[in-house]
Amino acid sequence: MKISSKMERCGLSPMRKFNPYAQKTKERGIKIYHLNIGQPDVETPAPFFQALKDFDEKVVSYAPSGGLPVYLDAVRDYYKSIGVELERGDILPTTGGSEALQMTFATILDDGDEIVIPEPFYPNYHTSVTLAGAKIHPIPTCVEEGYFYADRARVEACINEHTRALFVTNPGNPTGSILSPEELKLMLDIAKEHDLFIICDEVYREFVYAGEPLLSGLQFPGYEDNVIVIDSVSKRFSACGARVGAVISKNKEFMSQVMKWCQCRLATPTVDQIASAALYGLDPSYFDVVRDEYRLRRDTMVRKLQEIPGVVCRMPKGAFYVMCALPVDDTINAPDIARAIDILKAGIEKYNAK
Amino acid sequence: MKISSKMERCGLSPMRKFNPYAQKTKERGIKIYHLNIGQPDVETPAPFFQALKDFDEKVVSYAPSGGLPVYLDAVRDYYKSIGVELERGDILPTTGGSEALQMTFATILDDGDEIVIPEPFYPNYHTSVTLAGAKIHPIPTCVEEGYFYADRARVEACINEHTRALFVTNPGNPTGSILSPEELKLMLDIAKEHDLFIICDEVYREFVYAGEPLLSGLQFPGYEDNVIVIDSVSKRFSACGARVGAVISKNKEFMSQVMKWCQCRLATPTVDQIASAALYGLDPSYFDVVRDEYRLRRDTMVRKLQEIPGVVCRMPKGAFYVMCALPVDDTINAPDIARAIDILKAGIEKYNAK
Repeated sequence: MKISSKMERCGLSPMRKFNPYAQKTKERGIKIYHLNIGQPDVETPAPFFQALKDFDEKVVSYAPSGGLPVYLDAVRDYYKSIGVELERGDILPTTGGSEALQMTFATILDDGDEIVIPEPFYPNYHTSVTLAGAKIHPIPTCVEEGYFYADRARVEACINEHTRALFVTNPGNPTGSILSPEELKLMLDIAKEHDLFIICDEVYREFVYAGEPLLSGLQFPGYEDNVIVIDSVSKRFSACGARVGAVISKNKEFMSQVMKWCQCRLATPTVDQIASAALYGLDPSYFDVVRDEYRLRRDTMVRKLQEIPGVVCRMPKGAFYVMCALPVDDTINAPDIARAIDILKAGIEKYNAK
Repeated sequence: MKISSKMERCGLSPMRKFNPYAQKTKERGIKIYHLNIGQPDVETPAPFFQALKDFDEKVVSYAPSGGLPVYLDAVRDYYKSIGVELERGDILPTTGGSEALQMTFATILDDGDEIVIPEPFYPNYHTSVTLAGAKIHPIPTCVEEGYFYADRARVEACINEHTRALFVTNPGNPTGSILSPEELKLMLDIAKEHDLFIICDEVYREFVYAGEPLLSGLQFPGYEDNVIVIDSVSKRFSACGARVGAVISKNKEFMSQVMKWCQCRLATPTVDQIASAALYGLDPSYFDVVRDEYRLRRDTMVRKLQEIPGVVCRMPKGAFYVMCALPVDDTINAPDIARAIDILKAGIEKYNAK
């Protein structure tokens, strides 16, 4: 029996590869700080748990494929607060942002198609795009330029007859870069001029640390047919295990096609939709507190990394990851990994000696 | 912008097409009995709700991609009770049986591949297979033969160089037919001889009404590499909205490839896995009570349908659907639909006149 060629082309999650090593190390009694995975330790807000306790249906029945009104309306209210008017039909709930990516790629990408994504990117984009039969055309970026990519010439150099969409992660995962309103508008313009979808993964939208203006792709009039937003409660409300996200678009043809996927998998979990809707009722001051905590951690981490000779690390502006360049050529190469570990160890020793 | 050709080839769920008409009719004050959709009105057992109330983590964190041990062990215990020994790694939790289908098809089917499925079949198989780039090769069956298909010549006539798998739904959805142990063994033999996977959708396993022996594909030694079981708590425990299912196989290569999908979508919902695990702790007498209720409904429905002149309806042996043939040529054809409605109306009038 044969495995499909598209699945053969996919890999396991590089982040989740660490787990068996971490597990073994824990068994030796050593405390592990899981910096490899985007699992917040910030507490999930109480309304989620209250909603679980308050659930009083007799039958845990299917939600509609297009979502429970209580969840759709919670998302609508959230977007209304940033000036975006959505109809219920502009939102389709998903089992996490991950399913939103899967269904979007399956809806717009055919075998041989390409999607333009700034690199480095969240590795699971590769799996979802590959399962749709398509390929990522990366826009190269570098730490020295703060992972900048919103330049017409650079982006257009990646567009060819196979291109179906541009993709922006804003704030960037894992780069922490953010697009200014002008840069985002440039990306939207390029998409529109080339008749492409532009997928905006905005799951880290609330996590920007210097008060910079961060706009959603949905906030620009005139690009309604092009823009598809990927959203999720996972990081926004520290509710990763709820697996509740959304695809949002005003392109009615696109949404009617995505609905085929939604009906095929019937529904997203009922209780989690209800509990996630409750999270959207939190006072916006909730985000101030969480942002302060993440900002403190970011500042500490970056300061310490920058103290290590040879490490290049810029302050990420958004999300909650830190990327740094180590002075080695190739971290797949064993001697280079050993050198990288030595560099980090020296940094830790210096820190401990203080 | 273009929609992918594979999504264009998919349709909306024929069952869910009824919903807007039902909604409009309800608005006219008419009571609707939703016979079009597999949503049990049998109550979800109490342990599910108790688990929601008892959930006391501070963070709703990601479950492991391979599932929470509490859920995996609950599934293992259930299979142990039917004589099947499973390791945790033989089970991957899914967001309902639907995702189990999606990930299985994506893992084994390439563009141009075929999968052999007895027809009539659950329409969402079509969407999942099409999204994987492949095609269903149907085995034709008919009501007059009780939807029988487990015949070597009939099955082998559908196998060609593009075939990658056989598919059995046991008990059948929507046919209610069941495979005897000998018939299932024949299907397994054909799969093995032709080096094919055999996917057994067994989500209705508990719903067989005359005490017939119903075996799982996992209960036959010697076919471990071929058998993939699709499972779900949806119908088994009236917990459709939990969206918790599983892919089960002892084929380690297949499971390691499916894990790529699992890691790509990170995890299935945490709370629902825990609450579903609690359902597996129910005493097996639970199924006796539910089966009695479904048997009563089936008998009533079939008796009434059989009283209508021209309707051909056999007693379904399993699941909880009824298929019948109406004496019209084509229910896509408007005059034929009108005739079908007249026939059913006459039946209802006859019933009301009693």
